[in-house]
Amino acid sequence: MLKLFYAVGSCALASHIALEEAGAEYETVRLNFAANDQRKPEYLKINPKGRVPALVTDSGILTETPAILAYIAQVFPKADLAPLSDPFAFARVQSFNSYLCSTAHVNHAHLMRGSRWADEPSSLEDMKRKVPKNVGDGFALMESEMVEGPWVMGKSFTICDPYLFTIANWLERDGVDIARFPKIHGQHQRMMERPAVKKVLAEWQK
Amino acid sequence: MLKLFYAVGSCALASHIALEEAGAEYETVRLNFAANDQRKPEYLKINPKGRVPALVTDSGILTETPAILAYIAQVFPKADLAPLSDPFAFARVQSFNSYLCSTAHVNHAHLMRGSRWADEPSSLEDMKRKVPKNVGDGFALMESEMVEGPWVMGKSFTICDPYLFTIANWLERDGVDIARFPKIHGQHQRMMERPAVKKVLAEWQK
Repeated sequence: MLKLFYAVGSCALASHIALEEAGAEYETVRLNFAANDQRKPEYLKINPKGRVPALVTDSGILTETPAILAYIAQVFPKADLAPLSDPFAFARVQSFNSYLCSTAHVNHAHLMRGSRWADEPSSLEDMKRKVPKNVGDGFALMESEMVEGPWVMGKSFTICDPYLFTIANWLERDGVDIARFPKIHGQHQRMMERPAVKKVLAEWQK
Repeated sequence: MLKLFYAVGSCALASHIALEEAGAEYETVRLNFAANDQRKPEYLKINPKGRVPALVTDSGILTETPAILAYIAQVFPKADLAPLSDPFAFARVQSFNSYLCSTAHVNHAHLMRGSRWADEPSSLEDMKRKVPKNVGDGFALMESEMVEGPWVMGKSFTICDPYLFTIANWLERDGVDIARFPKIHGQHQRMMERPAVKKVLAEWQK
């Protein structure tokens, strides 16, 4: 059976929602980042990066959200979570998710994880100050150029939707008002109404 | 016909090599970053992000290296650049490329592009100082946990190889000795011997 390792507040939410949307049989293991679970030897055997998500499958372990999301779409094709038979449409899905992981998530990470890239307290404060503008600019670009509405790719719900939802959940903490982005705001509200999302959020809030 | 927008020194090298390895018919357009070509209105119509690569296809325009690489593998299946029929193996390819774009490339970007995430000169210097360790740690992890050898995924050359080659080309500038990573070093040397790589590098060095 599939097993997802996650931590509350992390981007593993996207993979968790996708598993639920796919109708997958899976179990979850919650790590406690406050207790540094992700750095303990037993978890580093699962994911040597010391990060979440990690998805244990019968074939082996997968990490990195865009890869896990595309895998879920491919192994549960009936859930129709990605345009698998159209390489260009599939590439657009991948392009959006790649932007989320390499730009949007990274912009956000400079709020609390600046010590990945600098050491001085003054540098970390400088990074924090820039987060609202940086994150806001990235979302403005997604709003104007990438998100079609009502879902990210238009009429079809795809693996882009739980991932955007996850990163957009961080906007308030980043000091950015989601209402600036009407399409993304609407997508966020529609996501909150989905049974799969409600179920996963209920587990995370336990 | 496919058209690739690139800039010398950028991560577009990976997509360029993949097109050549695929035996694709394509043309290229070189942008001059020193002249800020990527910020000019005519290019922002191609890629509103103001970045490279961008791949113009008959179906539309694609951006983001992992998406472009997977697209090339899918539309030129005879070149066998990814394990397309095995979702788990394909996800491993995607996971590796996702690590390159969201972690390895981002670590490197703090050398010269720190102003994306902070403003003060002291912060930018702090980021620069940390680049050799950060980039080195990321490559050490790839060496020990991800790269199989002789190619990234083992016996088969895949779209991971031109991408790793591209990021590894920056190691010297990042202050990291590639010889610390024997598998990655060997892969790099094997890449340099491939006719496709020689042809693309010759164009970039013109």
